[in-house]
Amino acid sequence: MSLITLLTDFGTKGGYPGIMKGVILGINASAHIVDITHEIPPFDRIAAAFVLYSAYCFFPPGTIHVIVVDPGVGSEREVIAVKTPKYIFLAPDNGVLSLILDVEPDALAFRITRRELFLPEVSRTFHGRDIFAPIAAHLSKEATIEEIGEPFDAVRCDLIPRPQVLHKQIIGAVIYQDTFGNLITNIQESDLATAKITGNLFITINNTSIFGLSSSYSSVPVGHPAALFSSAGFLEIACNQASAAEKLGAGNAASVIIYSKS
Amino acid sequence: MSLITLLTDFGTKGGYPGIMKGVILGINASAHIVDITHEIPPFDRIAAAFVLYSAYCFFPPGTIHVIVVDPGVGSEREVIAVKTPKYIFLAPDNGVLSLILDVEPDALAFRITRRELFLPEVSRTFHGRDIFAPIAAHLSKEATIEEIGEPFDAVRCDLIPRPQVLHKQIIGAVIYQDTFGNLITNIQESDLATAKITGNLFITINNTSIFGLSSSYSSVPVGHPAALFSSAGFLEIACNQASAAEKLGAGNAASVIIYSKS
Amino acid sequence: MSLITLLTDFGTKGGYPGIMKGVILGINASAHIVDITHEIPPFDRIAAAFVLYSAYCFFPPGTIHVIVVDPGVGSEREVIAVKTPKYIFLAPDNGVLSLILDVEPDALAFRITRRELFLPEVSRTFHGRDIFAPIAAHLSKEATIEEIGEPFDAVRCDLIPRPQVLHKQIIGAVIYQDTFGNLITNIQESDLATAKITGNLFITINNTSIFGLSSSYSSVPVGHPAALFSSAGFLEIACNQASAAEKLGAGNAASVIIYSKS
Repeated sequence: MSLITLLTDFGTKGGYPGIMKGVILGINASAHIVDITHEIPPFDRIAAAFVLYSAYCFFPPGTIHVIVVDPGVGSEREVIAVKTPKYIFLAPDNGVLSLILDVEPDALAFRITRRELFLPEVSRTFHGRDIFAPIAAHLSKEATIEEIGEPFDAVRCDLIPRPQVLHKQIIGAVIYQDTFGNLITNIQESDLATAKITGNLFITINNTSIFGLSSSYSSVPVGHPAALFSSAGFLEIACNQASAAEKLGAGNAASVIIYSKS
Repeated sequence: MSLITLLTDFGTKGGYPGIMKGVILGINASAHIVDITHEIPPFDRIAAAFVLYSAYCFFPPGTIHVIVVDPGVGSEREVIAVKTPKYIFLAPDNGVLSLILDVEPDALAFRITRRELFLPEVSRTFHGRDIFAPIAAHLSKEATIEEIGEPFDAVRCDLIPRPQVLHKQIIGAVIYQDTFGNLITNIQESDLATAKITGNLFITINNTSIFGLSSSYSSVPVGHPAALFSSAGFLEIACNQASAAEKLGAGNAASVIIYSKS
Repeated sequence: MSLITLLTDFGTKGGYPGIMKGVILGINASAHIVDITHEIPPFDRIAAAFVLYSAYCFFPPGTIHVIVVDPGVGSEREVIAVKTPKYIFLAPDNGVLSLILDVEPDALAFRITRRELFLPEVSRTFHGRDIFAPIAAHLSKEATIEEIGEPFDAVRCDLIPRPQVLHKQIIGAVIYQDTFGNLITNIQESDLATAKITGNLFITINNTSIFGLSSSYSSVPVGHPAALFSSAGFLEIACNQASAAEKLGAGNAASVIIYSKS
């Protein structure tokens, strides 16, 4: 199987993801293409990095992940491919692979140089179609990453702000708001140990205080807020059967503080 | 062919349906996955039941329909599989299969018990990925429903309110509002005969009266309301080339009355 | 490969595109179906014509393009199939193929007449399921277009208003607003030569003046408007990393004037 995933901010209105699939299938008719999402908020590289991070490892080994959230399209930014033991990632070099590079120590990066594999005419506005789709299709067939690029050691990987981890206190931020209005932060479970937060803990966000961690949304009353480590490993503020974003009046970049009184 | 359909309220923003596909294809690389929709309003089990009912029988025999609209995720509700002569349905036991069970007298229900087929770590928040996707994939390969569960005779099937069917009068309600603003009710064509409504009939909804049934949207002037039995067999209030929900100021749970003066 | 694309205004909420796929796969289990979009604004045939035009030629030869944007469903309009050297287009006869017919001189048109290939019961409201899906599936298997229809020489092809091309001036209009708020007009690059606009040129839209053409969005400062010929060959008004529709307060049918002072 040649599995290719697509993760873009193209939306589904204008047909852009479909066009990418047409290009891919014209080069490799047996490619199997899966949409991760095309609804990343326009140009929101942090959201793209987060969604990719929460999804990539659930695909079978050999999958090629293609990320096109690319405010710099048409400028001089590189197109890069990153190879890990199980996957290939194809993306603009703008930080969207930051979270992957954090957890994949054996990743190797390349910048794409084989222009004769691009579509014959490369537009300034739609590299998803003209560069990413044909390169992904060739990689899914027989081309190796070494043949289509050259080693690149300057990959941008500083996109995600790290939380401040202090003694018995962590100051983080909301980095992504999902479909249900859940607020995902940049605080990871390992940060708790670093901050020596072990006993009773409190979380504050926009004047709301939450006591302790929950194990599921439904362990608090309907409409109430809960804090839990999400399926992707980040601290998440949610409301049972409601939108935490609306209930708490908080969104991207809202400050989230965890502290311990013990 | 191993055809699996997905029907969820996950939305397409966060990549959740794509993650389910990754899990399925990792277990059965030749599965063919079709999205019915991921845009069920969050937690709206009635909408899920209706969309499933209107779609399921148009898929080829052998299709596995997976429904994940699951406000109780993480609580003790069962995960069930229902087998009919042509299909398998995999869903939380929360009533979303009510309309299917109404019309499939030979359905057999099982609760899923083979935990070793789940993903190794089952989260409290994303059973679509951790339970439903791997179970569907195994069912699409070689596992039989009898091997993955045990008979279950307490399936919830009381989700959809039935209309009141009186003499020459039916009092129903809007249960679903579609993409076009059409209002679908819980009144079925067979209810007319039961109520002995045969001649001239009138429909009222939110102070608007509609005379008679139409055979198509375009049989009334542009912008005017029409009542017709939809492609799924339920009474539907629509406006020709406009949103009935907006024009009539009505939505979910609005009362709809049919009566006959003859 | 039997590649079928779908382009509709059904939205993705109600499951309609999924139902079409179920019908297709029930007839041809090996069909490969790609969504171009289901988010055409309801009944907006011009948007459908434009999205189709920008997408169709990126699919491999042999692809069957199915377009269901069909305000006249249930009325007497014909269902047509148009055959070009590389593709088949299946659509209602309401002008949605206008841009294709403009650029495909060897196109042959047929009206579909083989009613026994439709689903057994044809509703008045959902021809996508009952007519378009089964006809597309049969065409993707073995049926030829000549077997399922008869020649038709009255295809509607007058849907898109043409710009007024004068001496050193072109008066056009916005015909489509994409996901990013980019405004696509009916002015094509060839119109510039016809109008003898060669040197300095100015573009005005809703009291904003833009000087000259840009080669990419990012060649103007963030938030500033640019005019460029888009990847589909039409003049497009965009703002770098912002919505031109919002910034300029302009949308569908807004007047766009190009003129030259040289």
